[in-house]
Amino acid sequence: MSKDKSDDMRPEYRREDLGTGVRGKYFERRMKPIQIGLIGFGTVGSGVVRLLTEQQEVLARRLGSPLILKKVADLDLDRPRPVALPADLLTTRAEDILDDPEIDIVVELIGGTDAARDYVMRAIAQGKHVVTANKALLAHHGNDLLAAAAAAGVEVAFEASVCGGIPIILALRQGLAANRVQELFGILNGTANYILTQMTQSGASYAQALSEAQAQGFAEADPTLDVEGIDTAHKLAILMSLAYGAQLDLESIAVEGISRLNPLDLQFAGEFGYCLKLLAITRDDGHRVEARVHPTLVPRDHMLANVNGAMNAVYLTGDAVGPILLYGQGAGMMPTASAVVSDLIDLARNLKHGVPGRVPALGWESALSTRRLIKPINDLVTNYYLRFSALDRPGVLSQVSGILGKHNISIAAVIQKGRELAATVPIVMITYEAREADARQAMAEIDQLPIVSPPTVFYRIEDPHLHAAHI
Amino acid sequence: MSKDKSDDMRPEYRREDLGTGVRGKYFERRMKPIQIGLIGFGTVGSGVVRLLTEQQEVLARRLGSPLILKKVADLDLDRPRPVALPADLLTTRAEDILDDPEIDIVVELIGGTDAARDYVMRAIAQGKHVVTANKALLAHHGNDLLAAAAAAGVEVAFEASVCGGIPIILALRQGLAANRVQELFGILNGTANYILTQMTQSGASYAQALSEAQAQGFAEADPTLDVEGIDTAHKLAILMSLAYGAQLDLESIAVEGISRLNPLDLQFAGEFGYCLKLLAITRDDGHRVEARVHPTLVPRDHMLANVNGAMNAVYLTGDAVGPILLYGQGAGMMPTASAVVSDLIDLARNLKHGVPGRVPALGWESALSTRRLIKPINDLVTNYYLRFSALDRPGVLSQVSGILGKHNISIAAVIQKGRELAATVPIVMITYEAREADARQAMAEIDQLPIVSPPTVFYRIEDPHLHAAHI
Repeated sequence: MSKDKSDDMRPEYRREDLGTGVRGKYFERRMKPIQIGLIGFGTVGSGVVRLLTEQQEVLARRLGSPLILKKVADLDLDRPRPVALPADLLTTRAEDILDDPEIDIVVELIGGTDAARDYVMRAIAQGKHVVTANKALLAHHGNDLLAAAAAAGVEVAFEASVCGGIPIILALRQGLAANRVQELFGILNGTANYILTQMTQSGASYAQALSEAQAQGFAEADPTLDVEGIDTAHKLAILMSLAYGAQLDLESIAVEGISRLNPLDLQFAGEFGYCLKLLAITRDDGHRVEARVHPTLVPRDHMLANVNGAMNAVYLTGDAVGPILLYGQGAGMMPTASAVVSDLIDLARNLKHGVPGRVPALGWESALSTRRLIKPINDLVTNYYLRFSALDRPGVLSQVSGILGKHNISIAAVIQKGRELAATVPIVMITYEAREADARQAMAEIDQLPIVSPPTVFYRIEDPHLHAAHI
Repeated sequence: MSKDKSDDMRPEYRREDLGTGVRGKYFERRMKPIQIGLIGFGTVGSGVVRLLTEQQEVLARRLGSPLILKKVADLDLDRPRPVALPADLLTTRAEDILDDPEIDIVVELIGGTDAARDYVMRAIAQGKHVVTANKALLAHHGNDLLAAAAAAGVEVAFEASVCGGIPIILALRQGLAANRVQELFGILNGTANYILTQMTQSGASYAQALSEAQAQGFAEADPTLDVEGIDTAHKLAILMSLAYGAQLDLESIAVEGISRLNPLDLQFAGEFGYCLKLLAITRDDGHRVEARVHPTLVPRDHMLANVNGAMNAVYLTGDAVGPILLYGQGAGMMPTASAVVSDLIDLARNLKHGVPGRVPALGWESALSTRRLIKPINDLVTNYYLRFSALDRPGVLSQVSGILGKHNISIAAVIQKGRELAATVPIVMITYEAREADARQAMAEIDQLPIVSPPTVFYRIEDPHLHAAHI
C-alpha cells in the first residue's frame, strides 16, 4: 500500500477523533523538519534564538530531527542583541512569517495585547501553531484565541506565560490531571517579590526598594503592571482556567498591589511570625472559587515564605496528590526561553505524529465551554491583620474590640505599642476567621471613632493553623 | 473512503515515523473506552481504584471518554481494604489480566523485581502498555524492559516510581526538554528524611528516630532499602537516565545510608550552619557525571534544608532554566495513585490518537543506546565535614592539619571542643574543596596517629558558597 494513499487517510482519522479542523498538510509534512517563525526579537526572543542555535544537539536528540528557525521579525533590527543571526533570517515584517506556507509554528514574543492578538489570530487562520509567553494576551483574549485555534485544528501553547521556565502549565495540564485542585497560592511576579524581599530584609521603604529593583533590572521604569498585582492577576487567570478546566476569567479576580505598603506592617507581621508576600490565591469549595491577588501574611515556616528575591513559586493542594510546590526563576531571558522551546518540542512531536490537539489547550475536553462561579471578595472568610492608629488613651482597645466583637470578629493576638510614635500609637491585631464584609463594616465603624486616626490598615492572612475562634 | 481501509493504513504510518512495533489494533480501538487491568491491590493499588471510581467525572472531562477498570489481580483478596470492588472484577490470577485481549493498559503495583519483571514483560509481549510505580524494577531491569517495549510499540510509564505524585518525571522528560541538566539534588526517600528530621529537631538517636518512624507508619519493619540509600539510588538511576538521555546505570552509583549517623554530627553541622540530608546527587561536567547517594551537609538557608518529615523534593539546575525545585509527598496511597492515574490519562490520550511512543520512554530518541561515563567517587572534588576523636593534648590540631595540608586539603572552619567527653575530645572541621581520594588518604594517615581514636567521621558538603580554598 503506497504512502500517498496513507497520507490521504490521515485527515479522516483526525476529524472523527479530535473534533478539530481538518488539514491534510500535517501528514505531508511529517518527514520534513519543523520550521519556526519568531515574531519579537527582544530579550526572550534572543534566548529562544540562542537555544535553537546553541542547543541544537540536545533538540535533535530529543526529537530525532532538527527544529529550523526560518525567520525572525522585529521592527527594530539595529538594536544590540546578545545573539547574532544571518541577515537573510531577519525581517521587519511579521507578514513574512505569517504568510510563509512553510512555517509550521509561530512564536509570538512581542508582548502587549493589540498587535499580538492580531498576529496570533492571523497565524491561527493560516493553520499555524502558536507558542506565546504573553500572559496579558491570554488573560484578555485567551478564550477567543483558544476557541479559534480549536476550530482551526491548531494549538496555542503558553508554558512561558506563567512562572518562566517552571513547568507549572505542564503540571496542571497533565502531571496533576487526576486531581481536583483544592487551593493554589502563587508568587507569580518576580518584581513584586524582589521589592517585598528588600523591604523585609533591609527595612527599606517601598520607594527605596522599587529604586533598587529598577537599578538591578528587576523592575521597569513604569512598574504599574508588576507592583499593582495586574500581571499576577493575568497569570492567576491562566492557572485557574487550567486548574478548574474553565474559561479564563480575569474580571472576577479581586486585585490589590503592594505600592502603598508601609514597612511598619512588615515589622509587625514579623513579630507575629509572619512574612508578607504578594500572593495569587484561588480556592475551590466545590461550589464557588476564590480568585484574588493581594499582599498576604504567610507563616514564616511555610515553603512560600522562603521564596525570596525575584524567584517565583506555586504551592497548590490537589485532592489526591496533597501539597505540591514548584519553584524557580519566573522571568529572564533563558528561563523563559526554556519554556518556549519546551513548547516547541511538544508541538514538533505532535506535528511529527500528526496529532495536534492531543491534549486540549487547557487540559480538559470541556474547558472552553465551562465557567466557574466566583466567590465575591465580600463573602471571603479568612484571618485578618489589622493595624489601628489610635490616640494613646485608656479604653481604646476596649472600644475597638467591642466593635469587632459586634461584627463576629474574634481577636487571636494583639500588640499594643507604647508612646513611641508622636500623636498616635499602633494597635495591631491578628483575628480569627471572619467574613470580609464583616471586617470591612467593622473597620468603617472603627474609623469613625474620635480616638482612631483612619484609615485602618488591613491585610489577609493565609495560615492553616489559625482557623477558628477560641470563643 | 471507508474506515476499515483507513485502519489498515495506520500501521504503515507508525512504522515509518516511530520506528516502533506495528499493530493495527490501536486504530480499531480508538472509539472504544480504554480498559485497564491492575496487578497488585495493596495500598497504592487501592488509591488507584479509588481515583478510577471516585474521580470518574474529572477523568471523563479530561479525556472525553471514561477509563474502565476491567480487572484487579491480587494473591490475597480477603485483606481489608479502604475501597470495595464487585467480586467479578477481582481475581487471584495475573493471567486473567495479561491474557485478556480487551485490556489496553496493565498497571503493575506488586513491587519487587522478579514476578513484576515477568508480568511486565508478558504484558509488553501481549502488546499492552504498562504503568508501574516500581523503581527497583526499573533500576534493575529498566533497560531491558524499555527496549522490549520500544520494539513492541508499547509504552512503559513510570511517573509514580520517583517522588510519588510530584511530576518530576514529566518535568525532566518534557517540561525541561530544552535544557542540559547541570546538577540535580534529590531528597527521594521519605522514610530517611523523616528519621533525619526527627534526629535534627529532637536530638533523638538513630534507633529512637527509626522506632518513631516505624510507629508512625513511615518506616517498614525491615527499613534497609530506605535507610541504607538503596531506594534513593534506584530513583537516582531513573532521574539520571531522564536527565542525560542515557541508559539506567544503577551499579555506578556510590551509596551510603544513614543508619550509622551519630546525633553529635547533626549538632556540630548545625553549629556550622548546616543541616544533614540524605541526598541523591548527580552533576555533569560535560565529560563525566557524578552519581552518588549519601548523607550530605546542606546550608540551612537552602530550599532543600526546609524539606522536612516525609516530604520529598528535587532541586536541579538546567543550563537554560536555572535552578528549579519540585516538592511534595513522595509516597503514600493517594499521592502515588495521582501519578499512576496521570500516566493512565497520558497513555489513554496516546491510544485515542493512535500515537503510542509519541515521547520516547526516557524523553530522548537515542537514550536506550547511549551511556554516560561515571566519575568514580575517588575523583570527586567537594567540601568535607570531618570529625576526629582526639586525646585532649596540646599539638593535636597541628598534627591533624599538617597531614591534611600534605594532601592538599585546606581547612575552612574548625571547632575544637574542651574536656566534655571522657577519654577523647572531638575536633570538627569544614574543609575547602578537596579530592575524595586525598581526603580518604589523609583520614587513613590521621587514624594512625597515636593521639587519634579512629575512625574519623566524614560527610560531604554541598555548599555553593564554599568552593575554593583561601590559601
